[in-house]
Amino acid sequence: AERTQAEELPILPPEITRERFNEAVAELRKDIGEKNVELNDKPLIDGWYMEHPNTHDAFHIMEQDDTVSSATVYPGSTEEVQTVVRWANKYLIPIYPISMGRNLGYGGAAPRIRGAVVLDLGRRMDKVLKIDPDNCSCLVEPGVSYFALYEAVQATGYPLWIDTPDLGGGSVLGNAVDRGVGYTPYGDHFGCHCGMEVVLPTGEVVRTGMGALPGKNGEDNPCWQSFQYGYGPYSDGIFTQSNFGIVTKMGFWLMPATDHTSYMITFRDEDQYPEIMSTIRPLAINKVLGNVPQLRHVIQELAVTGKPKSYFYDGPGQIPREVIRKWAKEMPCGDCSWVFYGTVYGPDEFRRGQLEIIRREFGKIDGSRLMLPEELPEDHYLHSRVAVCSGVPVLRELDWLQWLPNGAHLFFAPIAPTSGEDVKRLFELCRKRHEEYGIDLFPTLCVASRESHVIVNLVYDRSSKESKAKAYNCLRAMIADAAAEGYGEYRTHILFSDQVAGTYNWNNNALMRMNEALKDALDPNGILAPGKNGIWPKRFRGKGWEI
Amino acid sequence: AERTQAEELPILPPEITRERFNEAVAELRKDIGEKNVELNDKPLIDGWYMEHPNTHDAFHIMEQDDTVSSATVYPGSTEEVQTVVRWANKYLIPIYPISMGRNLGYGGAAPRIRGAVVLDLGRRMDKVLKIDPDNCSCLVEPGVSYFALYEAVQATGYPLWIDTPDLGGGSVLGNAVDRGVGYTPYGDHFGCHCGMEVVLPTGEVVRTGMGALPGKNGEDNPCWQSFQYGYGPYSDGIFTQSNFGIVTKMGFWLMPATDHTSYMITFRDEDQYPEIMSTIRPLAINKVLGNVPQLRHVIQELAVTGKPKSYFYDGPGQIPREVIRKWAKEMPCGDCSWVFYGTVYGPDEFRRGQLEIIRREFGKIDGSRLMLPEELPEDHYLHSRVAVCSGVPVLRELDWLQWLPNGAHLFFAPIAPTSGEDVKRLFELCRKRHEEYGIDLFPTLCVASRESHVIVNLVYDRSSKESKAKAYNCLRAMIADAAAEGYGEYRTHILFSDQVAGTYNWNNNALMRMNEALKDALDPNGILAPGKNGIWPKRFRGKGWEI
Ligand SMILES: Cc1cc2nc3c(=O)[nH]c(=O)nc-3n(C[C@H](O)[C@H](O)[C@H](O)COP(=O)(O)OP(=O)(O)OC[C@H]3O[C@@H](n4cnc5c(N)ncnc54)[C@H](O)[C@@H]3O)c2cc1C
Ligand SMILES: Cc1cc2nc3c(=O)[nH]c(=O)nc-3n(C[C@H](O)[C@H](O)[C@H](O)COP(=O)(O)OP(=O)(O)OC[C@H]3O[C@@H](n4cnc5c(N)ncnc54)[C@H](O)[C@@H]3O)c2cc1C
Repeated sequence: AERTQAEELPILPPEITRERFNEAVAELRKDIGEKNVELNDKPLIDGWYMEHPNTHDAFHIMEQDDTVSSATVYPGSTEEVQTVVRWANKYLIPIYPISMGRNLGYGGAAPRIRGAVVLDLGRRMDKVLKIDPDNCSCLVEPGVSYFALYEAVQATGYPLWIDTPDLGGGSVLGNAVDRGVGYTPYGDHFGCHCGMEVVLPTGEVVRTGMGALPGKNGEDNPCWQSFQYGYGPYSDGIFTQSNFGIVTKMGFWLMPATDHTSYMITFRDEDQYPEIMSTIRPLAINKVLGNVPQLRHVIQELAVTGKPKSYFYDGPGQIPREVIRKWAKEMPCGDCSWVFYGTVYGPDEFRRGQLEIIRREFGKIDGSRLMLPEELPEDHYLHSRVAVCSGVPVLRELDWLQWLPNGAHLFFAPIAPTSGEDVKRLFELCRKRHEEYGIDLFPTLCVASRESHVIVNLVYDRSSKESKAKAYNCLRAMIADAAAEGYGEYRTHILFSDQVAGTYNWNNNALMRMNEALKDALDPNGILAPGKNGIWPKRFRGKGWEI
Repeated sequence: AERTQAEELPILPPEITRERFNEAVAELRKDIGEKNVELNDKPLIDGWYMEHPNTHDAFHIMEQDDTVSSATVYPGSTEEVQTVVRWANKYLIPIYPISMGRNLGYGGAAPRIRGAVVLDLGRRMDKVLKIDPDNCSCLVEPGVSYFALYEAVQATGYPLWIDTPDLGGGSVLGNAVDRGVGYTPYGDHFGCHCGMEVVLPTGEVVRTGMGALPGKNGEDNPCWQSFQYGYGPYSDGIFTQSNFGIVTKMGFWLMPATDHTSYMITFRDEDQYPEIMSTIRPLAINKVLGNVPQLRHVIQELAVTGKPKSYFYDGPGQIPREVIRKWAKEMPCGDCSWVFYGTVYGPDEFRRGQLEIIRREFGKIDGSRLMLPEELPEDHYLHSRVAVCSGVPVLRELDWLQWLPNGAHLFFAPIAPTSGEDVKRLFELCRKRHEEYGIDLFPTLCVASRESHVIVNLVYDRSSKESKAKAYNCLRAMIADAAAEGYGEYRTHILFSDQVAGTYNWNNNALMRMNEALKDALDPNGILAPGKNGIWPKRFRGKGWEI
């Protein structure tokens, strides 16, 4: 991969001379060690998931070097994070914290502002600080991946589960501050966290919840991972999806291990999903569906095999419905339209009871069929769900990338009530825009208690300007269409955050104006991740940075 | 009840002349209606729970008129709340919002600053705005009590439960913004809320979560009560236990009705509670204990009968253990030391299974005994637990007030890990201080998943300076003792908030300094509830207001 523009490297942060920048870098190297500050002046390498770059977005949706950093800094402790923050304030250099930078589909490791300094917390701050078998909780640093936490828990021998997203290489902490989701009953990662340590944009460190009360003899508070709220304003939420602080430690609840059975249900007709949704909703609210189950379109049965689209179809534009049908017929799912992946938990008898209700209720939908893992071949995707839904991290979902050459993802992730009518409206607009741009539609519904995270996976070819432009424009259009109907995204790619934040505009953008007031109070120099989640500090606000 | 000091009435807010105050009141009356602004210039009446005053703390722990307002204002809409807020900014008059003012034990309706204007939201803003049977949720105004919400849900006929605290007369919204607790599986009131509308101290209105995205055709967002977090910083938490905003609407999740069985388990020996705690902890984390059960000392079996202490004992000081024993022997609980009240939920078979585990595990504790409602007389307190634990509001807990003449409560409410060792340390310090001050010790443990809210109920005689002083000093001492051991309160009386906030002082009070920065950004004139939860705005900070 080559640079698209002939620019002097590294790309500088805004409003700073190269001389001053070099002076700043020299000072920082003195403060935290030569090898802990790397200039981004070498060729950009997209790598792959497990060897992802922290120099730019490996899944670039614009030019490869469009959202590129000037340097990467590797602090080794909370104190060193403070040092970097004070340094940023001194030189007015924007810094962009990542835990591991595997935020693929949402911007990867890239800073929102070109030339910002990436603060890679994970490389050196990667300790599991505590695993408490009685409280069923842990305390981790930013560099602990799901794989690493899983291993650490296994090593203790305690019967505890972690909760993992579809890919296990991300940061437990980083994913939670972006309010990501997993698939066991502890799938709401922010909801299941307990306690934070945060370096504020001024360089101060705070501990939230009970952590703010010192334990005896300088120990951590004994309830830091027991009680989320503490006393006074409960502030943890403002450090998620924001640029108000850098989280350096975070507590999580671990689930007591339990027996579990995953299953898959196929539904025959394309237009049955409203009926499927009405069946899901009461079961979800009543917790008969014990976790965060997924409803996927049958096209995804093809994609998760890891075979490229060209294997199934080599015509132009969208893969036709009949072609999907032809292939599905030969696969375990058979000729169906939707596939539901769920899991029940608990002792045998309890699971049997829950499964009975699930069989009965979904059985009312004409042509539906429930399958258990033992009825499916060993390499079937359901076995990967068995792992993920019992907290075992995997990488299976990466197989999707094969769909197109140089495959990359971009996510459209609106929230919908788990209701047929609402999901229908959302799906229809997705269908229309995907047709318009000739992109295959991969819709997944992640069902929580009272809503579904609709995750539409736009796969594009990174090496093709045209493919990128289509995905980019399709996403822009869907965000606008959805907002017009009253639906909003739970999370988005850094380049779409202004647009998405702009849809949350009730009462003349009152919420954003409040966020800006908080931003200016906490980050008067505007050094922390300017523009992240659409929040621009005073220094940058209204100066043409918004896109 | 008479005024203790001969002062001109109403008591004025700080730093304003009577002339200017009168001018301000006249203006406000013009703006929101003559009858909606009442001066606090008549004798103070403590009333009783259902006819509680909004002029002062009905459970005054210092002088009756020590925390007294200058006036009470009754806005009828969000717009009128905005009007009052702008008015307060114009005249620099501190306002103190209450929903219903039944925050008894924590300050009642009283403002933290003498002479502040109480904003009684509940009297006119008392509508249940929505009950959604599919999403199992509701949207309420501040004046909706648990009784009122219960009635409203019953009237719809939908099989839905509300969750109620021990007393049903409080505000659903007010209790949740103070992060109160109830006793069904939806007992974490903040955790089970979804979406807020908040008037900021500058007079702006924001909607949080999905509410910030306008619905179609000017409707509310369809996911406002479905998804808590929305996009960007999740800010709801900073409007709880704070003085950052006035909540005018709030959404709550309702639980689908289910079958349930409450039970009571008695334990023989005083010193068995560490064993009891170790039994409770895994059951709570594994959700075998399906709700927020309570563990109480046997003395409370006497108190909940509603009979005065003098009926049981007329000596001075604490009621002796042998006297409690004598009475307990004649009561259904028998000669025991601790009583555990729990409930299991779900279909018959499931409940039977859970109860079996509960019987087995607690059965390992020597001398324990499990009783079901049908084994107890009709007027036994367990029947009141049956109601509360299935979301039916009651007033039974008021019977405690009879313990002393002119009985009032003050709460000590620290958080403890559900562990024998921790609870022991807390109980010991309570015991020591209660003995020192000659106060009967009423400890209750409200068990959540990974911690217990320890609620120690200090009952005192409002008419006795001595009784008040003892309770006051006992609480001050326990807060300090607990903090020295690393334990902190989840909530406290307004007069103790400086002390409690001061115990959350990790890293040189970093959290409070952050809260002050937020306060000054959101409330530059410092008009909203100065001093609440220990947060003083710039105008008042460090000027001797802290106590
Ligand atoms: C095929 C595929 C499947 C996926 N499935 C899922 C899924 O099931 N669930 C899911 O949630 N995601 C999913 N993702 C998205 C993403 O891969 C994960 O969310 C991943 O965990 C995020 O990367 P990370 O953990 O390394 O976080 P990071 O990239 O380190 O951080 C994520 C975000 O949080 C901010 N941040 C990180 N650390 C801090 C900190 N310490 N302080 C302040 N801010 C910080 C960063 O600025 C960044 O915006 C998927 C992606 C792909 C490509
Ligand atoms: C015997 C007894 C038993 C009790 N049991 C329980 C129990 O089981 N659980 C429990 O939680 N409590 C309990 N309490 C305490 C208290 O009675 C309840 O919490 C009650 O619900 C609080 O009163 P309220 O709802 O009228 O709230 P309010 O007094 O209206 O408000 C409570 C607090 O929140 C603030 N506030 C209120 N409304 C707003 C708003 N709209 N915007 C911003 N701030 C606002 C107020 O300033 C106040 O500090 C008990 C008290 C007694 C005496």
